[in-house]
Formats: sequence, C-alpha cells, structure tokens
Amino acid sequence: MSTYKLTYFNFPALGEPIRFLLSYGGVEFEDNRIEWSNWHQIKGTTPLGQVPILEVDGQVFYQTIPICRFLGSKFNLLGDNEMENYQIDNVVQTITDLRMKIEMVNFDKFSPPNVIEEKRAQLKSESIPFFLKNLEDIASKNDGFLAVKKLSWGDLYFAAMIDYMNWMMKGNLLEDFENLKKVYGNVMEIDGIKSYVEKRPKPQMG
Amino acid sequence: MSTYKLTYFNFPALGEPIRFLLSYGGVEFEDNRIEWSNWHQIKGTTPLGQVPILEVDGQVFYQTIPICRFLGSKFNLLGDNEMENYQIDNVVQTITDLRMKIEMVNFDKFSPPNVIEEKRAQLKSESIPFFLKNLEDIASKNDGFLAVKKLSWGDLYFAAMIDYMNWMMKGNLLEDFENLKKVYGNVMEIDGIKSYVEKRPKPQMG
Repeated sequence: MSTYKLTYFNFPALGEPIRFLLSYGGVEFEDNRIEWSNWHQIKGTTPLGQVPILEVDGQVFYQTIPICRFLGSKFNLLGDNEMENYQIDNVVQTITDLRMKIEMVNFDKFSPPNVIEEKRAQLKSESIPFFLKNLEDIASKNDGFLAVKKLSWGDLYFAAMIDYMNWMMKGNLLEDFENLKKVYGNVMEIDGIKSYVEKRPKPQMG
Repeated sequence: MSTYKLTYFNFPALGEPIRFLLSYGGVEFEDNRIEWSNWHQIKGTTPLGQVPILEVDGQVFYQTIPICRFLGSKFNLLGDNEMENYQIDNVVQTITDLRMKIEMVNFDKFSPPNVIEEKRAQLKSESIPFFLKNLEDIASKNDGFLAVKKLSWGDLYFAAMIDYMNWMMKGNLLEDFENLKKVYGNVMEIDGIKSYVEKRPKPQMG
C-alpha cells in the first residue's frame, strides 16, 4: 500500500486536479495544506521552488500535468493507445493555455487598473469563448467527456481547473457550453470526488 | 506509409522539436514554412489560432508537447513504464517553464527598455541557472540523457528548445553545464538530426 502526501497551499488551483485524482483512485492521502506565512521556508526545499509536490512512498514528484498523467495511469484513466493519449494530452494542454491566459491578467501586479479591466473584458469576449468553444466541440463528439468517449484524467483535470478559472473570472465560464457542463457534471458526480468535495477545507483564496 | 505535413513559421522555436522528431524517425515530411505576411490568412484555419500543426494522413494534430509525445511513441522514444514516462514528462515541463519565462521577457512589448533589461538580468542571474541546475543534476544521473539513462523524446525536445532559448538570450545557456552539453551533443550527433540541420532553411528570426 503506497503512501501519498500532497503539499500545496490551502486553495484548489493547481493542487486540486491532483486531489481529485487521488480521491478518484480511492487512496488515502495526506493533504498537506501550507500557509502562505510558511511558504518562504518551504520553497527552498522543493525541486523547482514550486508546489504542488506529491510524495509517493517518499519519492518526490513535481510538475502538475506530469503528476496528473502519472496518477491517471495508476488509476486506469489513460487512453487505450497513443492516439487516444494524444487526445487527452491535447485537451489538457488547451485547458492549461486558457488557464495561463487568465492567470496573466488575474495576477498582473504591474498594469494600471483600467488596463487590467480592458484585458479582463478581452478575456471574457474573446479568449475564453474561443478556447471553450474548441473544447465544447470536442466534448460534443465524445458523449460528455473530453476525449475517447469515456472518463479520462483529462476530465478530472478540466473540472478542477474550471473551478479555479471561475474563481479568477468571478463567474461561471461554462454557462453557454452544454457539453462542457456535462463533462463537469460527470466528474463531480463520481463518488470519490463528491465525498472529497464535501469534506475539503474551506479554501483561503481571498 | 503515412504522410506528414508540418505547418509552422520559417524559424525553429516551437516547430523545431517536431522537425527533430520527424527527422529522427526517418520519415519524409512536408516542411510547410509559412511567411508572416500570410499568417493572418492561415490563423483562422487552425484549431486554436496557433501553429505548429502537424497533419498525419490528413488528420490535424495541434499543441506542441502532445504532438512531440505522440511522435515519441511512434518512434520508440517513450519510457518503458509510467514512472519512466513521468520522468520524461517532468523534464519537458521544466524546459517549457523556463522557455515561457524567457519568452515573457523577450517578447514583452509593453515594458520600458530599462525594465526589460532588469528582467533579462534577473533571468540570467537567477531563473536560467536555477532551472538548468535542476536539469543538470538530472542529466548527471542519467548518463548524458535527461531521463531513464537512454535517449527519449525529452532529449530531442530539450536540444531544439535550447537553440531557441539561446537565440532569445543571445548567448550559450549551457556554458556552465557539462552534463547538459552532453545531452545536447548526443542529440545533435544523431544521423537524422544532423542531416536535417545541414539542409534546413536559414531561419528568419530577425
């Protein structure tokens, strides 16, 4: 029986797809939620000065997407062949591209408020609908999943990231995307995810 | 016999790891190098308004890293198990993180010149050596490769990206990293890569 310890801040963001995957897999994990005030002490002990890190039997894994793919393989959430895995990798990368576009505006500390407001408006009217339309079309061909017509680690990654992007954009990004709502719903109805979500600590995201 | 068509600009950057992989695989590919002046016409025909795109027997693949992993599987450059694949994915993600940090400074069109110079200096003295030290330590344990003690698609991705990052930083980032020089050398000595590099068009990177 492997032991799992996830180290991340006390909010969803990049830690959450890993928490979702571990919860889906039905494994016990230590959900080590660090405080901002301790981060400067912990930062130097991580391989790249970044969290999340996942320790599996003491071995350190870092980099969110590689960790998620690795857990996906452990819990039978990969595709059946390399073409199917490409399809999963592709949607995960598209979600990541969108997430980073939003982060660059949301965490922009240098631009004046009116510039940030312009950028947020551009995200809302252009980038977000454009990227989500790409994913919506894919989901419409995959019976309520994002790839290969069945649940994959890409769906869990998506659902966790949508919550984070909704928080950054202060709204519901999926409002106009019926198939993506199905993807999200399919993930959130999984027993392991449901019970994790019910008991997770209240996030401290400000 | 599959047909391959890669569409990208006439410079290395994100197209180059794909060209390296196709060259390594020894397959013929149409190296469709588009001109900047035509980009506005082509952009709308791509799935995400982005290149590179790779067409394999007419089927469109997009997103650089998923494409590279897919070609890696086609040409036997994956790991032997999911832990080994994690190790490859991990270094590829670390290279990507560094590449994006450099791009954000190199293509910053908004900051005044003195701020950009400060950021370039910070890259040179902090981020670049920090990220490359992580990879150097990994390479030192893997006999001149970046993972699993043998050639993987991660090494080809690394060598192509180093050229791009060197160009952005106007220098040789590997100067102080003996093991990473070995990784780079091991890739550039591969027959297929060598003959591609000899015959590739002169890049138009300004």
